[in-house]
Amino acid sequence: MNDTRIETDSMGEIRVPAERLYGAQTQRSRENFRIGEERMPRELIHALGLVKCSAAAANRKLGLLDDAIAEAIEKAARRVASGELGEEFPLSVWQTGSGTQTNMNANEVIANLASRALGGELGSKKPVHPNDHVNKSQSSNDTIPTAIHVAAVQALNEKLLPALEFMLAELDAKANAWGDLVKIGRTHTQDAVPLTLGQEFSGYAQQVRGGIERIGRVLPGLLEIAQGGTAVGTGLNAPNDFGQLVADELTEATGHPFTCAPNRFEALAAQDALVFAHGALNTLAASLYKIANDIRLLGSGPRSGLGELALPANEPGSSIMPGKVNPTQVEALTQVCAQVFGNHAAITFAGSQGQFELNVYRPLVAYNFLQSVTLVADVSRSFTNHLLKGLEPRRENIAAGVENSLMLVTALAPEIGYDKAAEIAKRAHSEGSTLREAAIASGLVSQADYDRIVRPEDMVGRN
Amino acid sequence: MNDTRIETDSMGEIRVPAERLYGAQTQRSRENFRIGEERMPRELIHALGLVKCSAAAANRKLGLLDDAIAEAIEKAARRVASGELGEEFPLSVWQTGSGTQTNMNANEVIANLASRALGGELGSKKPVHPNDHVNKSQSSNDTIPTAIHVAAVQALNEKLLPALEFMLAELDAKANAWGDLVKIGRTHTQDAVPLTLGQEFSGYAQQVRGGIERIGRVLPGLLEIAQGGTAVGTGLNAPNDFGQLVADELTEATGHPFTCAPNRFEALAAQDALVFAHGALNTLAASLYKIANDIRLLGSGPRSGLGELALPANEPGSSIMPGKVNPTQVEALTQVCAQVFGNHAAITFAGSQGQFELNVYRPLVAYNFLQSVTLVADVSRSFTNHLLKGLEPRRENIAAGVENSLMLVTALAPEIGYDKAAEIAKRAHSEGSTLREAAIASGLVSQADYDRIVRPEDMVGRN
Amino acid sequence: MNDTRIETDSMGEIRVPAERLYGAQTQRSRENFRIGEERMPRELIHALGLVKCSAAAANRKLGLLDDAIAEAIEKAARRVASGELGEEFPLSVWQTGSGTQTNMNANEVIANLASRALGGELGSKKPVHPNDHVNKSQSSNDTIPTAIHVAAVQALNEKLLPALEFMLAELDAKANAWGDLVKIGRTHTQDAVPLTLGQEFSGYAQQVRGGIERIGRVLPGLLEIAQGGTAVGTGLNAPNDFGQLVADELTEATGHPFTCAPNRFEALAAQDALVFAHGALNTLAASLYKIANDIRLLGSGPRSGLGELALPANEPGSSIMPGKVNPTQVEALTQVCAQVFGNHAAITFAGSQGQFELNVYRPLVAYNFLQSVTLVADVSRSFTNHLLKGLEPRRENIAAGVENSLMLVTALAPEIGYDKAAEIAKRAHSEGSTLREAAIASGLVSQADYDRIVRPEDMVGRN
Amino acid sequence: MNDTRIETDSMGEIRVPAERLYGAQTQRSRENFRIGEERMPRELIHALGLVKCSAAAANRKLGLLDDAIAEAIEKAARRVASGELGEEFPLSVWQTGSGTQTNMNANEVIANLASRALGGELGSKKPVHPNDHVNKSQSSNDTIPTAIHVAAVQALNEKLLPALEFMLAELDAKANAWGDLVKIGRTHTQDAVPLTLGQEFSGYAQQVRGGIERIGRVLPGLLEIAQGGTAVGTGLNAPNDFGQLVADELTEATGHPFTCAPNRFEALAAQDALVFAHGALNTLAASLYKIANDIRLLGSGPRSGLGELALPANEPGSSIMPGKVNPTQVEALTQVCAQVFGNHAAITFAGSQGQFELNVYRPLVAYNFLQSVTLVADVSRSFTNHLLKGLEPRRENIAAGVENSLMLVTALAPEIGYDKAAEIAKRAHSEGSTLREAAIASGLVSQADYDRIVRPEDMVGRN
Repeated sequence: MNDTRIETDSMGEIRVPAERLYGAQTQRSRENFRIGEERMPRELIHALGLVKCSAAAANRKLGLLDDAIAEAIEKAARRVASGELGEEFPLSVWQTGSGTQTNMNANEVIANLASRALGGELGSKKPVHPNDHVNKSQSSNDTIPTAIHVAAVQALNEKLLPALEFMLAELDAKANAWGDLVKIGRTHTQDAVPLTLGQEFSGYAQQVRGGIERIGRVLPGLLEIAQGGTAVGTGLNAPNDFGQLVADELTEATGHPFTCAPNRFEALAAQDALVFAHGALNTLAASLYKIANDIRLLGSGPRSGLGELALPANEPGSSIMPGKVNPTQVEALTQVCAQVFGNHAAITFAGSQGQFELNVYRPLVAYNFLQSVTLVADVSRSFTNHLLKGLEPRRENIAAGVENSLMLVTALAPEIGYDKAAEIAKRAHSEGSTLREAAIASGLVSQADYDRIVRPEDMVGRN
Repeated sequence: MNDTRIETDSMGEIRVPAERLYGAQTQRSRENFRIGEERMPRELIHALGLVKCSAAAANRKLGLLDDAIAEAIEKAARRVASGELGEEFPLSVWQTGSGTQTNMNANEVIANLASRALGGELGSKKPVHPNDHVNKSQSSNDTIPTAIHVAAVQALNEKLLPALEFMLAELDAKANAWGDLVKIGRTHTQDAVPLTLGQEFSGYAQQVRGGIERIGRVLPGLLEIAQGGTAVGTGLNAPNDFGQLVADELTEATGHPFTCAPNRFEALAAQDALVFAHGALNTLAASLYKIANDIRLLGSGPRSGLGELALPANEPGSSIMPGKVNPTQVEALTQVCAQVFGNHAAITFAGSQGQFELNVYRPLVAYNFLQSVTLVADVSRSFTNHLLKGLEPRRENIAAGVENSLMLVTALAPEIGYDKAAEIAKRAHSEGSTLREAAIASGLVSQADYDRIVRPEDMVGRN
Repeated sequence: MNDTRIETDSMGEIRVPAERLYGAQTQRSRENFRIGEERMPRELIHALGLVKCSAAAANRKLGLLDDAIAEAIEKAARRVASGELGEEFPLSVWQTGSGTQTNMNANEVIANLASRALGGELGSKKPVHPNDHVNKSQSSNDTIPTAIHVAAVQALNEKLLPALEFMLAELDAKANAWGDLVKIGRTHTQDAVPLTLGQEFSGYAQQVRGGIERIGRVLPGLLEIAQGGTAVGTGLNAPNDFGQLVADELTEATGHPFTCAPNRFEALAAQDALVFAHGALNTLAASLYKIANDIRLLGSGPRSGLGELALPANEPGSSIMPGKVNPTQVEALTQVCAQVFGNHAAITFAGSQGQFELNVYRPLVAYNFLQSVTLVADVSRSFTNHLLKGLEPRRENIAAGVENSLMLVTALAPEIGYDKAAEIAKRAHSEGSTLREAAIASGLVSQADYDRIVRPEDMVGRN
Repeated sequence: MNDTRIETDSMGEIRVPAERLYGAQTQRSRENFRIGEERMPRELIHALGLVKCSAAAANRKLGLLDDAIAEAIEKAARRVASGELGEEFPLSVWQTGSGTQTNMNANEVIANLASRALGGELGSKKPVHPNDHVNKSQSSNDTIPTAIHVAAVQALNEKLLPALEFMLAELDAKANAWGDLVKIGRTHTQDAVPLTLGQEFSGYAQQVRGGIERIGRVLPGLLEIAQGGTAVGTGLNAPNDFGQLVADELTEATGHPFTCAPNRFEALAAQDALVFAHGALNTLAASLYKIANDIRLLGSGPRSGLGELALPANEPGSSIMPGKVNPTQVEALTQVCAQVFGNHAAITFAGSQGQFELNVYRPLVAYNFLQSVTLVADVSRSFTNHLLKGLEPRRENIAAGVENSLMLVTALAPEIGYDKAAEIAKRAHSEGSTLREAAIASGLVSQADYDRIVRPEDMVGRN
């Protein structure tokens, strides 16, 4: 572990651990940015591997790299993409805002791997040079944004959307299963007219369904990549169709239809597509928060709460109160939502702070964006598996709520008018009687009419 | 002004100013919510007028209101929609979170107007009753969300999009006009390779174009209305096709294709469409911030700044420094952006806090959403008129920047390799020489090659 | 109204309405910043009047203004401070970020008033010139920050703190009144061990008390003023002790101990004291939110909620559900809290965006800060008057909650151990029995021991 | 690694890895909360070790634990506090919002260690039981908040304040060293009157000094601990003076004067002290952002920027542009600031969401709070070491800025009036002449007067 070798970059020599594949610039960054413990997100590193592989293929097609070198680069880059080289990517999130050192980290690791494969020595930059070959036709300024978009598209499609579909299926199942279970509605947290428990859950399902649709609305912007813009967007040192060739390679490799950004100056200088896309996650977090909070309150009790739902008991709830069961999955989920709100604030701030030809808040945005995706995906599965699936209605309590309700009076309003209906409800409230008793006692409605009109099961509008 | 008349509601009698058309519930709200000076947004009141008019028409078609009453209601509601009755809507934003009192404010004003038109007395509720007629088939819980969506759709389409198109046209014009003006690029705020001033502005134009597209992506959710859900989403006391009829009326009246929300439980219990839509405004604010901040810095000087742009002088800049000119339109715009970021935080919070069948943060969301739209629309026009239109390049300064640049060395890298190119740039920097001098002195490139390769006008990638 | 007169500034002539006291620069700003409807906060205008009056007095003491002119300025400035000249201050919040035009607005109005009083003509700048006399020894860059601090200190001390004390007194009264009323506690929204309703309210009282203390902790920074720094902090064109003299005058006029900022470069270039101070408001909003939300949930029902509190019925709750009573004051308050969270995001953003010698987000910060103070003060009074004062416990429901509780088992744990206690609670839960029944049936505790140990009134730790 | 042993809790048996010291509840939590990769912050685990040690000592003093057991617990808890048992604390941040499973994790590890030390078997809970002994007189609900406060106080005092003092010393040194170096000031990013570079840095120093003071203002709230409140704040199952004894032990162990919270109901149900304390970090981030952004812009260039500062070159700046040097430390720092703003949003949200007797967003708040502290501390050191220390003024550029300035005209205003001074500045600007040339050509000031009055070195107000 103490063995080192010498690597060089344009600033001179520096010692790196002998067993490592990275080079001088990675090492400098390790020494200059000892900040926190957050490492560049692994999803980003994998996507960067894909981009490097695609770039080498494009350079080969354009005749800019000879086959042997290109092949060696592609092979090494695929290993980066596969995730097997995690230890070679030790850099902090809190580095240069372009991610240049992480781009160089990939260039160095791939160059060393490729050079070694072709018989060269680690650190020699021969026959494969990190800048002149691995980074050919590229700049950090187009490559890192491209890799972030690739990582975001993959994470949304492969992690988040399936998790949301999984959750949605369970919510839809509940909405169906409980479609006839009439319960008291609540507005302003106060008793209101009835609906079915299935209808209530259909609202939750719609929120998740809407969340899935919104992700569909933000994906197009993420499928546009900056590649080909190089340093400032002009594409200096890259052939005209380099970006398109990389997009094609990425499409082939991932199955997602990447295209070139319509304006590369914008693609480098802004992060608008990510800010907007995270807005869909922000909305999703608001949706999930509402769903979970409702379930928490409907499951409150067991004796002195609303008591309409029984939550599965997954663990002892209290270190001091024996036998307590808590809505812990709700708490994990709502904490994740709070985190997403915080991440959104950070990303929005960062998105506004581009200067001239570059926005230098890329690692921050990547870190927060990918954290949001992972956490929401994971917690959606956890919540579904450990809470939703085991959720049961407490039918006795639910029935009692409907029976006692005063707001069934609403059904009388079209017949006797709002003002008289209000009189009946107030009478029942102040006397502590049932609505039926108060209605009939009021003389404003006959017993027969009451029983004909005030039928909770007919008030829930199912047809 | 001191004259009063008595109005009543289900809580009893209350005195209201004699000259006012509103009734008991409006008056109670005025007395119970003396909080701040923010009034319910006028755009929302106008939209509520439209909704009430549409509802009356729908009720008439369904045979629930006779023609005379319906007509009187529609006529009165159109006056509300027209904006001529502003003084009749005095309620605070900071009221009940369902907007119930504002719904009743509209019901009361319209009922009084309609009753009077039909020969009744103010406050008599005869022949037109605020609840039984004006509010027929409705609840605040579906009507207020509907009105907010209508107001949002109108404000985005009629105020914001035209203002953005206006700004975009000016940015596109600048991008064209300055398409050949080569300037130094800047990444990390440091000198980089060149681009044209037109390319730089094409990035700004793309940000605004993207902003317009994003608004298009969020509008569909706003075009779905809650109407027909009544109190909790079941549609109790409303005919099945009431919501669709109202949507048709609104489409007819506004030209925007409103439809019924796919799930009315969600439409009442959440504000997801508004949270997501404001995310497009949030992204737009980030975009505009970047554009304005760039122009501020490019226009810095006049002697000790970047000095690439001359900003129009609209007013004396300083109360103590004579002759000073400041980027005041930039400052107005960037402050508006900060306000939008704040509004987004408020709206996101509110969106997460629905409980059971209702989200009771509607006035807050409406207030912040419509403020964002108005401010961004207004400031985009102001910025275009008072700054963009008068913007001029300072060609001498721009030319000097290109001439002095060290980063032109990048063009040499593909020929001589990154490491040698770096050597040349460093030499020029430390010696304070031009890049050309250092390059030739280095012996790494011939004079002829240098002059062939390092041509800024060829480095900007225009074809 | 159509009459105009000509005013001039360093950019030339401009027509202003004849009946107005403001001059050229105010008029230019009206024309150049047609953005939204938000006007510069009146509290800020009043504070600016105070500052101008204090500055004239200081200039007189320093021999920089002769007595007649100084006196005329002071008199006019006091009229600005008194609030009687509101119509003379028409400028938008969304103007130059230094507030220069509002400073000039005050200079112009005061110069015109003072000139007229001394026999001069409106617009002549004689004998009192807006820059050379009213603005003497000042710049917008020190005067506007000073006025914002003055307005903030006054608003916090005179509006907010009394409102919080008013609310606190009521919460303390409730804590006392209900000190013996044992109720079920809830953690994770689930039934827990008991406490008294008074204890619960003592927690709310402590949150408000803490809020008051925190305002005390942020006031010192606001009592430091920028005055004396003039344009960039060096104090150019102001005598050395000018700032201190103004601070003394302000202290005299307001009763609050203003002092000079320890570093005027910081005082102009940053808004840190305001960002920090608003952090206390942000915390306060979080506190109030929690209190109000608890009361909303404890007051839920009337039949199917937690039903521990009866909230006063201030207005009809629903346009469709007759007899409904809603926690509308809670909703106004929680919406205000959301607004404060949004304002905090805007202020934080603005605070970070100073550049070089000036932070140009002053009107935005003033607007949001003062809005937060006013709204929280107003809503605290409204909530106290219309909700807290009328709050009543629903004793029957509260007693039932204690009786049915399973978590009283916690008192057994020290005697029989956590694991056995858990067994008893689970048995009672699954059998639907009382805890006492399950405990005795379990054989783990004798009837006598149970009755000795499990006494809710002894579990609330009052001594 | 595949060996397991059986552990039990009140829900039954579960297999845990044989080599691990944790027990059943930790294992359940690992299985039920597979969410993200964020682990409970190690600083919190260490603080929890301290709290457990202090609690055992307190229980011993109160005669609730016999000496042997107490000693074994204390010894084991000290190992937790020392950080040597990191692998025994595998739980996710995204768990129950009370941190109950982390409290149990500590109870289980300590019980197993202590039991083993006393001859018992792992998992036997004998002779030391995780709940009945290690958790004696405690609940997660008071212990976790206590541990978070302890961790926060330690992190602020031991990590952040020294780092800020380190940075402040360097800023003060720069302010001194450059106290005579006159440069052009900039307001609105436009040329303004001069100041010295030392004065500019004195403003930065004041921002950091203010940041240190503000941390002092928020620490008192963090020094108050919830311990003694147990499950809901009543202190059930804990002796009256237990909390005070623990506070004394913690004071002894850490050197920080911990005391009991004045109201334990508030201490459990809210997180106000943390929300307020993070407001100081939020303000600090705004301060640091401003400082770093200024340095970035002042260091822009090398040829086409403001060029007043030379930043140390720590690494190659670009993968494509050879020889480029970027303000990478600025970028790390400003990204950290953005993260702190995001964390503040998350913490504020969480702080508002307590329900009844508990706020269940504790792990989230701890995670974000401690991340903010660590990142700001680390980046302050990094920025100081790798940027501030190596910062150099570019004196030639600075001198040219002063020479060319038009705003020196301000010094003439008190002599010739604002309007005439403005005329001179505009003449110089339009003619491209120096101010001196224009002034003398204007005839408004004599050459001698000009040279007497317009002396930049006298305009910076140093005496």
